Amino acid sequence: MANWRSVWLLVAVACGPAQAMELPDTSLERPRAREAGVVIGVLPTGPRNAIVDVPGVAVGHATVVEGEAIRTGVTAILPHPGHLYRERVPAAIVIGNGYGKLLGISQVAELGELETPILLTGTLGVWRAADALVGWQLARPGMEDVRSLNPVVGETNDGYLNDIRARPLRAEHVVQALETAATDNVDEGAIGAGTGTVAFGWKGGIGTSSRRLDDAQGGHTVGVLVQSNYGGRLTIGGVALDDVRPARSASRGANAVPPATGDGSIMIVVATDAPLDDRLLRRLAARALLGVGRTGSSMSNGSGDYVIAFSTATQVRRALGARRHAQQVLPNEAMTPLFEAVAEATEEAIVNSLFRATGKRGHRGAVPALPLERVLPRLRRANTVAP
Amino acid sequence: MANWRSVWLLVAVACGPAQAMELPDTSLERPRAREAGVVIGVLPTGPRNAIVDVPGVAVGHATVVEGEAIRTGVTAILPHPGHLYRERVPAAIVIGNGYGKLLGISQVAELGELETPILLTGTLGVWRAADALVGWQLARPGMEDVRSLNPVVGETNDGYLNDIRARPLRAEHVVQALETAATDNVDEGAIGAGTGTVAFGWKGGIGTSSRRLDDAQGGHTVGVLVQSNYGGRLTIGGVALDDVRPARSASRGANAVPPATGDGSIMIVVATDAPLDDRLLRRLAARALLGVGRTGSSMSNGSGDYVIAFSTATQVRRALGARRHAQQVLPNEAMTPLFEAVAEATEEAIVNSLFRATGKRGHRGAVPALPLERVLPRLRRANTVAP
Amino acid sequence: MANWRSVWLLVAVACGPAQAMELPDTSLERPRAREAGVVIGVLPTGPRNAIVDVPGVAVGHATVVEGEAIRTGVTAILPHPGHLYRERVPAAIVIGNGYGKLLGISQVAELGELETPILLTGTLGVWRAADALVGWQLARPGMEDVRSLNPVVGETNDGYLNDIRARPLRAEHVVQALETAATDNVDEGAIGAGTGTVAFGWKGGIGTSSRRLDDAQGGHTVGVLVQSNYGGRLTIGGVALDDVRPARSASRGANAVPPATGDGSIMIVVATDAPLDDRLLRRLAARALLGVGRTGSSMSNGSGDYVIAFSTATQVRRALGARRHAQQVLPNEAMTPLFEAVAEATEEAIVNSLFRATGKRGHRGAVPALPLERVLPRLRRANTVAP
Amino acid sequence: MANWRSVWLLVAVACGPAQAMELPDTSLERPRAREAGVVIGVLPTGPRNAIVDVPGVAVGHATVVEGEAIRTGVTAILPHPGHLYRERVPAAIVIGNGYGKLLGISQVAELGELETPILLTGTLGVWRAADALVGWQLARPGMEDVRSLNPVVGETNDGYLNDIRARPLRAEHVVQALETAATDNVDEGAIGAGTGTVAFGWKGGIGTSSRRLDDAQGGHTVGVLVQSNYGGRLTIGGVALDDVRPARSASRGANAVPPATGDGSIMIVVATDAPLDDRLLRRLAARALLGVGRTGSSMSNGSGDYVIAFSTATQVRRALGARRHAQQVLPNEAMTPLFEAVAEATEEAIVNSLFRATGKRGHRGAVPALPLERVLPRLRRANTVAP
Repeated sequence: MANWRSVWLLVAVACGPAQAMELPDTSLERPRAREAGVVIGVLPTGPRNAIVDVPGVAVGHATVVEGEAIRTGVTAILPHPGHLYRERVPAAIVIGNGYGKLLGISQVAELGELETPILLTGTLGVWRAADALVGWQLARPGMEDVRSLNPVVGETNDGYLNDIRARPLRAEHVVQALETAATDNVDEGAIGAGTGTVAFGWKGGIGTSSRRLDDAQGGHTVGVLVQSNYGGRLTIGGVALDDVRPARSASRGANAVPPATGDGSIMIVVATDAPLDDRLLRRLAARALLGVGRTGSSMSNGSGDYVIAFSTATQVRRALGARRHAQQVLPNEAMTPLFEAVAEATEEAIVNSLFRATGKRGHRGAVPALPLERVLPRLRRANTVAP
Repeated sequence: MANWRSVWLLVAVACGPAQAMELPDTSLERPRAREAGVVIGVLPTGPRNAIVDVPGVAVGHATVVEGEAIRTGVTAILPHPGHLYRERVPAAIVIGNGYGKLLGISQVAELGELETPILLTGTLGVWRAADALVGWQLARPGMEDVRSLNPVVGETNDGYLNDIRARPLRAEHVVQALETAATDNVDEGAIGAGTGTVAFGWKGGIGTSSRRLDDAQGGHTVGVLVQSNYGGRLTIGGVALDDVRPARSASRGANAVPPATGDGSIMIVVATDAPLDDRLLRRLAARALLGVGRTGSSMSNGSGDYVIAFSTATQVRRALGARRHAQQVLPNEAMTPLFEAVAEATEEAIVNSLFRATGKRGHRGAVPALPLERVLPRLRRANTVAP
Repeated sequence: MANWRSVWLLVAVACGPAQAMELPDTSLERPRAREAGVVIGVLPTGPRNAIVDVPGVAVGHATVVEGEAIRTGVTAILPHPGHLYRERVPAAIVIGNGYGKLLGISQVAELGELETPILLTGTLGVWRAADALVGWQLARPGMEDVRSLNPVVGETNDGYLNDIRARPLRAEHVVQALETAATDNVDEGAIGAGTGTVAFGWKGGIGTSSRRLDDAQGGHTVGVLVQSNYGGRLTIGGVALDDVRPARSASRGANAVPPATGDGSIMIVVATDAPLDDRLLRRLAARALLGVGRTGSSMSNGSGDYVIAFSTATQVRRALGARRHAQQVLPNEAMTPLFEAVAEATEEAIVNSLFRATGKRGHRGAVPALPLERVLPRLRRANTVAP
Repeated sequence: MANWRSVWLLVAVACGPAQAMELPDTSLERPRAREAGVVIGVLPTGPRNAIVDVPGVAVGHATVVEGEAIRTGVTAILPHPGHLYRERVPAAIVIGNGYGKLLGISQVAELGELETPILLTGTLGVWRAADALVGWQLARPGMEDVRSLNPVVGETNDGYLNDIRARPLRAEHVVQALETAATDNVDEGAIGAGTGTVAFGWKGGIGTSSRRLDDAQGGHTVGVLVQSNYGGRLTIGGVALDDVRPARSASRGANAVPPATGDGSIMIVVATDAPLDDRLLRRLAARALLGVGRTGSSMSNGSGDYVIAFSTATQVRRALGARRHAQQVLPNEAMTPLFEAVAEATEEAIVNSLFRATGKRGHRGAVPALPLERVLPRLRRANTVAP
């Protein structure tokens, strides 16, 4: 582990931030927050510090980069390896700021469950992604007589790096994300749905983190995956980074908007193996937004801030056609540690998305990676990073 | 059965509508809708056609009549005979029109449960009723260390017959309603919280009804109790009674408002022994409002239209301090018959409140009873009542 | 007027219900409810008794019928003839039962406004319809720099008559509906989004109606358009038609579900020229569901029952980029007549959809038209239709 | 300014934390956060850094201390000096965690307005406070014919220092808070509704703060007042104070619960002179919760976390009986700076409540004041306080 840090520092010194954004998007150049000594909160993480620490959860990405202007992608989250339509997981969606197109909201609220994988993508690709997901799932075994399906597809606006109006997402991308989903996927940064996103003026993207409660509190795991594309006053571990701000990026067109205004969005997917019903999941999801707030967001007007939470616990799973759902549900009184876990994991997943994302050039300009060589010393001065 | 009908017709003929409102408020003079041949819907009722058909549910009333101006009261509904704080029932509240003061809303939504009996009373008495309920319940065995309690207290505005600004409700009235609550109480009309209410310009009040699903659909019972105090275009069994309208009542003061404007309110309490969690109860409660709509209401601006639903099933009850709630919950797919049941029972409970309420004179004027001698022939002409 | 009625009766007598479903889908064979003497409610209608009575509102349909199995379509509702993205109308969406895929919900709730036309279609076509709408609108003048759009697209499940899994809807159909939208379009029945829908076991579809308040109440118009595809105990003008039930239709496959179960959906679009902000529109929309309930629905588990309401009044319209929105909004106290209007117009629009829809044969069987020759005599016996 | 700081340090040194809680509850001994060099956020405050910076807003407190066990009180917030029932302010209530008894919720949501002052008090006093408020307001001029009133009364549970089951609050206390309300009241700490509250294991109470946007952003003021009684991992200015924790206080009874569990509550009142309608106020209120999250709360299960927001702008005020409400409302796009303002002001108001509250002894034990002599050095080490 000590290895990567020196490698990364070397790269940073050698290249400087300007060139850093031309770095290849491989996984080793930039550390995760915790690898760099930035510890968010007090609860221990799961073994991978990722949403896939929740047993059975799988994640897949399709990164769509074409020419100079297409920078988008799709990320799939599958709650469990079984038949998602027949073995439904309880779920809830909470909206921090509803400026967004998240599909599937009302049926999740009404029935309290998911019947498809979750997809994340860019704003104007959301409908094609949903259509492709439906096509893929209807073709699965055991779906021959299904004539209704409620795909849950979220988005953030990657329209700075990506020529979003071209709507480049195709069904094959969705299928790729779904079919490559794996339970050991901890990829982060400018991949999948995070390929073209921008957060706080820096390159954002996919980030993930988890927390595991100790056995006295049930031993449950809470995992979070975010697609970061929003803004505010960037704050890491409580330290407002007022003196680490992106230069106004050179943009290619007269109408280009600098991507640091805070309008953007964040999609948050929360998984847990704690046996929670949909109401408890709604309560859990609401706390993820506190983690967003701690990074310096005020959930700006143009930001679509959504949380989708589900439980994988077999004690709350719902078999289609059952006459009764026999459930073992946590009481309200057991929720507080889970609330703390999801707030911490969301905050850390966001920081991971910034730490891991490499700079990118695209449709209307370039977006640099968060300059860790400036950030980390600032955090050390605040005693947020161990020296 | 034939008995009461002739008695009642005799009274009506002998006295006419004007004097009818001076009838003593005994229970036999006026029939329930079904006794008069008015059948709402198609599902069978429970044995008492009342909320107390749901096993364990108890209802109690305190009727407060003092001098010429005090016409109010309080009605208590207890979900089960056990310790309501320690053995909580799942519950949900749905709001048709929120012009009202129903207490306890947010905690029921958050925790999904009741921890007190439900009270209904007049608008400006709601806070004293809640305070009295809290005092009564804190003094019960096993409550010695409880320092928080969420009383659910609803109201409608009885300010036409009742000098509502005098706030005459006292703690002893609340205690009386709670302590006289009985599982065989099917009293209706101008009693308890219905003492001073007005519906469609006629005397309204308490009404109740139930439906029992057949065994193939689970054999569950849905019971409804209403406090009717609202208005619209009175419609019974689908027949709009446009030609049966109250004369504008003589009022005592310059500012008296005729009580037929539709501003008023309706409180609806729904009990079921079907094993429903709070989300399913919310879905159930929403359908009670369809029953209100079928009586000719458009949920007018000034009407507070609320539904409080709970399940008494032991399979969903929540023991305080449990590490897990083991539950056997109905699937979403089983809800439709229950939805039909609650819509029918609500409509019939409302009609019962009008059929059973006797005319009253009070603070600002008099309100006649619904003139059944005019209503029933009209319903017969529409084939709604069997000849 | 007398004309059409005799023509229609002749057809009915000559052909009987079985053949009636093979009737060509022209507009004159079947009457609207009011033309047949069925008057819903007491408020006067607008001049066309249609949503297009609200000045500026335009409606367009594309009917998609291909081979023996494709029976679907799309209906577009445009709030005004101006630039919908730049001159936004306040709007609200209310959910009766959320089993549905209506797109655009959260942004309408958050911002309180529409920025696109509204589309209705079949369930599995909703995402392609949205994608097509976005493509069409982004290509309009003045949209060159827009990178986010919130299409509002509703659906009901036409999967009995239509081979819904084939997802036959194409962008050209959406464009056709949008571009043929007209302010004098009062077409109803098995057209557009109503091509393949089924209601109460009969052929449903598009229906519309309106109410106009008298000048003392503001002179406002409320117009409603529905896509009926739901069920329950069919009730017209308060008369439950228990003895007019569809025969179980012959179906083509072992898994065909008879389409009278009540699972289906209803989409309701409400337009008004009353100056209402989004909160008042939410209140208005909620009352449309009362009209649904009066037709015999209990909003069954599998039904997606949604209301989308908007105001066309220039006093509440929002110019994009304005520093302030100067508004003249109705007070809460003025809402009751509008509530009555929307409940009545919704009920009548539904009845119109049934009266006007012709029987259809499609993917999994045939669905007959509502047999008016049996319905109307029944209504006459109940005095609901003037003799 | 330098003055108070040395005074306070002197006191701290001389007495130590144990005796500090016996300090008289005067206003000069302990600094506000900003006076001690702790600056939350980046936006400038209003002149008093208090909710009363919003012109017209008045605050009053009644502190109820009797014997050794009664430690409670009531705080009143009046939106403007005019007739609150006839000149209504738009308002919204947002619920972070609904474990609480806040009265008035549904009517504020339905009508979008306040018609009474706002009260805060202890949990089991909320109904008597509401009843007293109603009595007081009904007796005001111009209220003679009013028969319905929707008091908005919030609470947090002061049951550790206060013998809450005794329900000591009386109508005279409410009247005192209402009638002493002043537009220059910036009192904080253990007064009024904050008399008996506990936050993070330290003495909490009333705190207030404000932000003023610069003229280019409209020049609007956002003011916040909190009643802090909750918990979590205390974080001030981003610095988690893990090494500054209260000793477990000696308690008087076997069942006493140490008051640092996080179960408690926070009531947040937000005032602004920005012309916001109820929807925009709802959006504003939601961001106050981000400020709560930044202090280390995860909105624990037992915490009632509520935000009540209103606008005092005459451009959005609603005159009772008006035929139209002429309004000048901000567009959605103008909200982001206000969102940042309310998050910052809420965080600072909370910190102020802790900085200003003096330690107290009461019913079940003693609660020390936040030991600023330990906190401030820790903040300095993190560069959060200027040296």
